Amino acid sequence: LSRLQEILLRAAGDDRALRVVGAHDGLTAILAERAGFDAIWAGGLGISLAHGVPDAGILTMTERLADAVRMKRACELPIIADVDSGFGDVNIVRRMATLYAEAGIDGVCIEDKRGPKRNSFWPSNCLEDPHVFAHRVSVIKETPKTSLFVIARIEALIAGESMGDALDRAALYVEAGADALAIHSKHETVAEIDKFCSGLQETDCDSPIFVIPTTYPSADVHQLHRLGASGVIYANQGMRAIVSAVEHTFEEIMLHGSSLPLESSIASVDRLFDLSGAHSLLPVTATGQ
Amino acid sequence: LSRLQEILLRAAGDDRALRVVGAHDGLTAILAERAGFDAIWAGGLGISLAHGVPDAGILTMTERLADAVRMKRACELPIIADVDSGFGDVNIVRRMATLYAEAGIDGVCIEDKRGPKRNSFWPSNCLEDPHVFAHRVSVIKETPKTSLFVIARIEALIAGESMGDALDRAALYVEAGADALAIHSKHETVAEIDKFCSGLQETDCDSPIFVIPTTYPSADVHQLHRLGASGVIYANQGMRAIVSAVEHTFEEIMLHGSSLPLESSIASVDRLFDLSGAHSLLPVTATGQ
Amino acid sequence: LSRLQEILLRAAGDDRALRVVGAHDGLTAILAERAGFDAIWAGGLGISLAHGVPDAGILTMTERLADAVRMKRACELPIIADVDSGFGDVNIVRRMATLYAEAGIDGVCIEDKRGPKRNSFWPSNCLEDPHVFAHRVSVIKETPKTSLFVIARIEALIAGESMGDALDRAALYVEAGADALAIHSKHETVAEIDKFCSGLQETDCDSPIFVIPTTYPSADVHQLHRLGASGVIYANQGMRAIVSAVEHTFEEIMLHGSSLPLESSIASVDRLFDLSGAHSLLPVTATGQ
Amino acid sequence: LSRLQEILLRAAGDDRALRVVGAHDGLTAILAERAGFDAIWAGGLGISLAHGVPDAGILTMTERLADAVRMKRACELPIIADVDSGFGDVNIVRRMATLYAEAGIDGVCIEDKRGPKRNSFWPSNCLEDPHVFAHRVSVIKETPKTSLFVIARIEALIAGESMGDALDRAALYVEAGADALAIHSKHETVAEIDKFCSGLQETDCDSPIFVIPTTYPSADVHQLHRLGASGVIYANQGMRAIVSAVEHTFEEIMLHGSSLPLESSIASVDRLFDLSGAHSLLPVTATGQ
Repeated sequence: LSRLQEILLRAAGDDRALRVVGAHDGLTAILAERAGFDAIWAGGLGISLAHGVPDAGILTMTERLADAVRMKRACELPIIADVDSGFGDVNIVRRMATLYAEAGIDGVCIEDKRGPKRNSFWPSNCLEDPHVFAHRVSVIKETPKTSLFVIARIEALIAGESMGDALDRAALYVEAGADALAIHSKHETVAEIDKFCSGLQETDCDSPIFVIPTTYPSADVHQLHRLGASGVIYANQGMRAIVSAVEHTFEEIMLHGSSLPLESSIASVDRLFDLSGAHSLLPVTATGQ
Repeated sequence: LSRLQEILLRAAGDDRALRVVGAHDGLTAILAERAGFDAIWAGGLGISLAHGVPDAGILTMTERLADAVRMKRACELPIIADVDSGFGDVNIVRRMATLYAEAGIDGVCIEDKRGPKRNSFWPSNCLEDPHVFAHRVSVIKETPKTSLFVIARIEALIAGESMGDALDRAALYVEAGADALAIHSKHETVAEIDKFCSGLQETDCDSPIFVIPTTYPSADVHQLHRLGASGVIYANQGMRAIVSAVEHTFEEIMLHGSSLPLESSIASVDRLFDLSGAHSLLPVTATGQ
Repeated sequence: LSRLQEILLRAAGDDRALRVVGAHDGLTAILAERAGFDAIWAGGLGISLAHGVPDAGILTMTERLADAVRMKRACELPIIADVDSGFGDVNIVRRMATLYAEAGIDGVCIEDKRGPKRNSFWPSNCLEDPHVFAHRVSVIKETPKTSLFVIARIEALIAGESMGDALDRAALYVEAGADALAIHSKHETVAEIDKFCSGLQETDCDSPIFVIPTTYPSADVHQLHRLGASGVIYANQGMRAIVSAVEHTFEEIMLHGSSLPLESSIASVDRLFDLSGAHSLLPVTATGQ
Repeated sequence: LSRLQEILLRAAGDDRALRVVGAHDGLTAILAERAGFDAIWAGGLGISLAHGVPDAGILTMTERLADAVRMKRACELPIIADVDSGFGDVNIVRRMATLYAEAGIDGVCIEDKRGPKRNSFWPSNCLEDPHVFAHRVSVIKETPKTSLFVIARIEALIAGESMGDALDRAALYVEAGADALAIHSKHETVAEIDKFCSGLQETDCDSPIFVIPTTYPSADVHQLHRLGASGVIYANQGMRAIVSAVEHTFEEIMLHGSSLPLESSIASVDRLFDLSGAHSLLPVTATGQ
């Protein structure tokens, strides 16, 4: 069993859904772990923004993996890496599987869009042929010496396709070896999610389902679990909090010419040292070795 | 003239000090630029924490430079890269100069401590011999095909040495070619800074001086400028704001099982897209090219 | 004028073609410079093989660029980086242009094939629509703050298309801003090359033409220049020599249990030191600084 | 048991020494595997030269590890990575152990010199205090979640110290947890090696011993095994063969303006494809996926 399968089983035993949170670097991964999340979402939007580029397949697989590894090294939580549509053709997908597994990434989430990937909330995305995508899933699962947990992310509802199409895709992807599904929706209610989960249950498919409540935050983890979700991904809230906080901080410093008015509301420098693990440094000798 | 020399001259003409702010990735660099800062401080503490490791010389020069470049690519501001004590012997210092200049980094700040570098606010730091350090400064300045702006950072006061020692070091480093000095202090008032700046003026040294008011936030940029500072580095306030904001966000999500209570206080997803430059993506053809 | 334009002009003045040689790392770049070549071909086949992977678009742009930079740092010759079909859509092509120029790469050679790129000597390559490709060329040329020399490589003859198609493509690509053309042929004679060069001259197009005599080694640089080539790329001969030499060396060591029989025919260890630039290391102090 | 311990045991059962060969990239690793070597030596001299820089601690750990990983990915052989004196203080050594193990490197060889490292055949190397170095070895062995095979390389004889000092160091390093020793000698005969191995046997130390017959190639693997060596490292012969072969190839091309005279003596392009694994590419669909 992979670590993600283990924690899914344990959560199912506890009758709860996994809570997965988006991080984009070592610090946010550490904070995710301390807050008690079950796993890290190493998402494309967050990592792209950490590079200052749009979420449009701009970064290379090398850059995306390096940032996922940065998170993996900083905490003990399992990492679910967003790999867009797999970064290229099947040979590249196979190398991706090898390199992500080699690097200690626990799972990948691959989506059924054609390149150039565009953030799901933008227009002009183009769905991949479901059989082509299913083949890509099977290539990951069959890559030698890897045991990546594969989440197949269905973008059919985002692209305006029918619920039937979404469910057909689900069946194909599970058959191809996907360990879980992610159903993406840009509705402001959970109606679509509800229908998809019900539809899937009718087909006797018991694949775990992940959801990403970016546009429907009024649904909480308990409600989403009751609808059928095994995992909830809070993909971008950390990054959004960072924007607000840093913007405010920088504006205050510019306004006052000092950080004095902020000192009581921002973490201390000692807290930074603590989070970085400074206390577990080995002592060094006088000659600096 | 290098870009940093230019903005120093312009600021002097405006009778003000440069305001330099610590960033650690593309997003924070973009926010620094939008807030109106003059330059970016690509500091060791911030970059280390972005990797989840302590500020103790743990990251390699490759990792440090890559993160500085990430900031450089994300904004138009000049980048001042913190290079600790230079990452090694003079041959490594020379390669550092070549690689940082090649990458478009505008300036480096090198400090007169011996490896293993330790954050200046920790004990057990060991000063470098001033002549050895001055030689390192001259090696950077003499590296062919580079024009890095070099800030020589004096750690004498941090290490408990005398003001006289600090001033002697200042003279040596300027003679070796340093374009500016940074005087670091861990006092809660500006008394030390004041004395150092006055002392330096008495020697007819007109090198620009940078200060880092981490422990003395009650001194604002105008006061520091009056004392003699040409630049003020707000090194870690952005990172400290991030810790508080992300910690709060993650705790709220864990508590409520959703981000609903946070939605009004955190930036929108559209704001993330805007900051990432999504609006300036070129249109792609139907076949995705 | 870019460096490649300069050396093309100078070679034209000397009535000769440029000699460009394939390298794949720092050592081979150094040897290319010492042998007197005019520029380095940082080719996909060589770099891929240096990673042990097939020339099929497997490596990321990050990996390809890093190896081109390794060559650039090791010598003073201009680097022409093979960028396959541009690594993705126009936004990725634009970033490619920015990053390659930022890294000091002098020129790129982009080819009019659709991804997934396959080595030109394999079947199953698919040509890109010429207008889509021409747009890609113009995107590179119009990327702000870059002045990459762009060679548009025509694969029409390789793909079995007509000479007319190849010439039409040439006209389009030059109009789009290409600084030079490369015409690729897998024939064992120069007949195709001859026709293409003549055909181009008839259209009054005076774009420099690069050729890659892998399958027609009996044509020498003087003959190719007379036919109309401004540059000749010896793409893979260095790598092929390496395979033979290392294979022989390793077999001999396995056979004899020592390198004794090889000692007189392989370079000395001192020669390795010399090539690495060991003689220009700065002296270090007794304390190792 | 680690892979290196396993193959050492198996070789001991066959009454033979391991044959380890220096490689520096994917291609040379593939050729080493095909020739039948037991393991790869990812040496500092070879990797440095592949970057075009001297073997003087110039490359960062990141660069050294990346090239070792390149070899690891290209073949199935165990990789022994040369880590100079550990790249820094004990905290850096500990991170080195974590990262190398995480990357799938099987073993590291660390040497008892003080930084700045210099190639062993150059003057001005400075030995590390043996207890400081032994501590470094123990830090590697005690790093959590790693099982690196550690070769402690003794430079005492290179530095002109006595045989007694070399043997005392050997005892300390084995006690600290070293899995094997490497004894380096720059003599042209095996007399030193012989004495060291005999001396060690007298102390009842049965640690495996690696030797590096660069300056004493007349001793073959059988003789070295009889003296007491468990492994022989042919560190630089591949690189030396490359220099000769590429130099000759480039000179011939410059002389003849073509590769025609070389065609019969260098590997074919098809051979490059074969070595790169082109035959095991997955087929791609017409739409290039």
